[in-house]
Amino acid sequence: MADITADELARRLEALRESMRREKLDGLILASEANVRYVSGFSGSESVLLVGARSLVLLTDFRYVEEAENTCPHALVRLHKKGLMRTVAAEARRRRMKRVGFPAGRLTVLQADQLRQGLGARRLKRSSGLVERLRLRKSPAEVAAIRNCLVIAQKAYRSVWRRLRPGMTESEAAAELEYQMRRRLGASGPAFETIVAFDAHASEPHAKPGRKRLRASSIVLVDWGARAGFYNCDLTRTKPIGRIPRKFAKIRDIVLEAQKRAIEAIRPGVRLRDVDAAARSFIASQGYGKRFGHGLGHGVGLEIHEGPYVGARGRGRLEPGMVVTVEPGIYLPGEFGVRIEDMALVTDDGAEVLSNLPRL
Amino acid sequence: MADITADELARRLEALRESMRREKLDGLILASEANVRYVSGFSGSESVLLVGARSLVLLTDFRYVEEAENTCPHALVRLHKKGLMRTVAAEARRRRMKRVGFPAGRLTVLQADQLRQGLGARRLKRSSGLVERLRLRKSPAEVAAIRNCLVIAQKAYRSVWRRLRPGMTESEAAAELEYQMRRRLGASGPAFETIVAFDAHASEPHAKPGRKRLRASSIVLVDWGARAGFYNCDLTRTKPIGRIPRKFAKIRDIVLEAQKRAIEAIRPGVRLRDVDAAARSFIASQGYGKRFGHGLGHGVGLEIHEGPYVGARGRGRLEPGMVVTVEPGIYLPGEFGVRIEDMALVTDDGAEVLSNLPRL
Repeated sequence: MADITADELARRLEALRESMRREKLDGLILASEANVRYVSGFSGSESVLLVGARSLVLLTDFRYVEEAENTCPHALVRLHKKGLMRTVAAEARRRRMKRVGFPAGRLTVLQADQLRQGLGARRLKRSSGLVERLRLRKSPAEVAAIRNCLVIAQKAYRSVWRRLRPGMTESEAAAELEYQMRRRLGASGPAFETIVAFDAHASEPHAKPGRKRLRASSIVLVDWGARAGFYNCDLTRTKPIGRIPRKFAKIRDIVLEAQKRAIEAIRPGVRLRDVDAAARSFIASQGYGKRFGHGLGHGVGLEIHEGPYVGARGRGRLEPGMVVTVEPGIYLPGEFGVRIEDMALVTDDGAEVLSNLPRL
Repeated sequence: MADITADELARRLEALRESMRREKLDGLILASEANVRYVSGFSGSESVLLVGARSLVLLTDFRYVEEAENTCPHALVRLHKKGLMRTVAAEARRRRMKRVGFPAGRLTVLQADQLRQGLGARRLKRSSGLVERLRLRKSPAEVAAIRNCLVIAQKAYRSVWRRLRPGMTESEAAAELEYQMRRRLGASGPAFETIVAFDAHASEPHAKPGRKRLRASSIVLVDWGARAGFYNCDLTRTKPIGRIPRKFAKIRDIVLEAQKRAIEAIRPGVRLRDVDAAARSFIASQGYGKRFGHGLGHGVGLEIHEGPYVGARGRGRLEPGMVVTVEPGIYLPGEFGVRIEDMALVTDDGAEVLSNLPRL
């Protein structure tokens, strides 16, 4: 993987235990793949991590025991056979944990029942976001992993762009792009289902690539990313092939200017919603405020969508080490849509744009 | 999609309402993508279906409204803005529903809280599995959709098998296979992350394709499937390239015989665990019982893993229309693993094996 060292894992664990002390928790159950991975290094799925003040136990099944022992330098690996929740409850009981946080936004009602049966309701506390909070600020190793994803994604885009031919379908172009990232460039896969949308189809913000065919003159929106070493990236380009329609050029220039203003607004201490507003107010001033129906951006890391949420309702402020997308868009139903998306790292005094693929 | 007609959707809805009457529910909340799709035809995600005795309401966001109106012949489509759970609670209240089932195995603790706040705890009943129960028995249209996936998956395997060359990595072979399914054969994607594992790596039942390279003589395990029209398939082949090691041939023949015995055991009325036992007891009789650590198989349909679970702890019996995998395996750590997986349809008096790719 992207070589997160045992030292870095130890630092993360220590930071998490510090958060647990503040919340007066002597135990914490983690269940999301990304959180388990962040704290332990474990690369499998469907496993649970129990964090104690001095203990760290990964509960997994037979499929992953060997992998867990190889990838988790600080965790004790335990095989669960009779259900994850029962096993984690028994483990917490055996370790005499008294206040155990569990992820209420992640565990299902049934899973929480099983925990309560095994551990008693009094010992369980709802606790969400401790690890997500730590994940907001990326370490240099994490930024390096994200840069690596961007290198792959950008090369693949360039290569596919050269291969576009009239008659090609959106779905074919998407398959080609994912193939390039994985087969030629070493991605472990696409970071999410690639969007390729031509012309009017590009006016849907989440278009699925279909059988629509490229014409000699078309507008081509591609929203894609590479996953490599458990990290992700996320980019969008909207470019014309053939003749450039005048209206497209006008809308594109508005989106570009909105993106530029948002990037210029990025620095530590700025409110997330003010970054969104920097782009949104410009688009609104040009008369397209209602055509930009989504938030400006989001964090990217172990997950393709993670904190912080950079939108009109985003809470909180930018901090150094955050990595966010900046992706304003204008969507004109029945005509076309334009979205341009890059990734920025919040530095000590501003922003570093991590992606460097030409926008035009 | 795989052309599930409006009539078939109407029959599913009527069957579900029959189940609701038995459970004395006048409302039912569905939240899993597969269940929402099964009952309504909706192809998007992150949406909720509220089923009433005479009403059917799909709650979705701005991304999917148009798609929902095009794909759900029987549902009223409502845009939610202030959170799915709050909106569905308001909708159920407005319709004066008194006993509303919700999926306790699917909703998170936080989501259930929001529902309770909006609707009152007294009106909410835990209710899991009503739709899953219906999905166990596939209709002819569903079987046709699964057959279509198998045709794609099998053609792609044959094509990639011909392209294997010493030096190729597992990851490259997996990318090639997914590319063939999607680009050349019309799959909407792989049904799950393709497993390609060479030699000792094949001893991990869920190996991730990596940088291990094919040798002139290697054992090649491929576990893959195609997704097309929202349905899925699941296959595994383990075959040697070059010289056939004697031990491999021996283990492979045991696995093949175990699979044959399991398939012969399939017919309506047979207990699921007895189908598992037909394979497992044979493998145990050959001295490898501890090397077959997973269940024999599972249902496949809208989800790649769905009911029934065909394992030692499987509850219930086979019924006509069920489609299950039959996938015994023997894993020898540090040496190799062999798994052979086909898909079978339970017919009125036995089994029809749906896959027809040579096993050797």
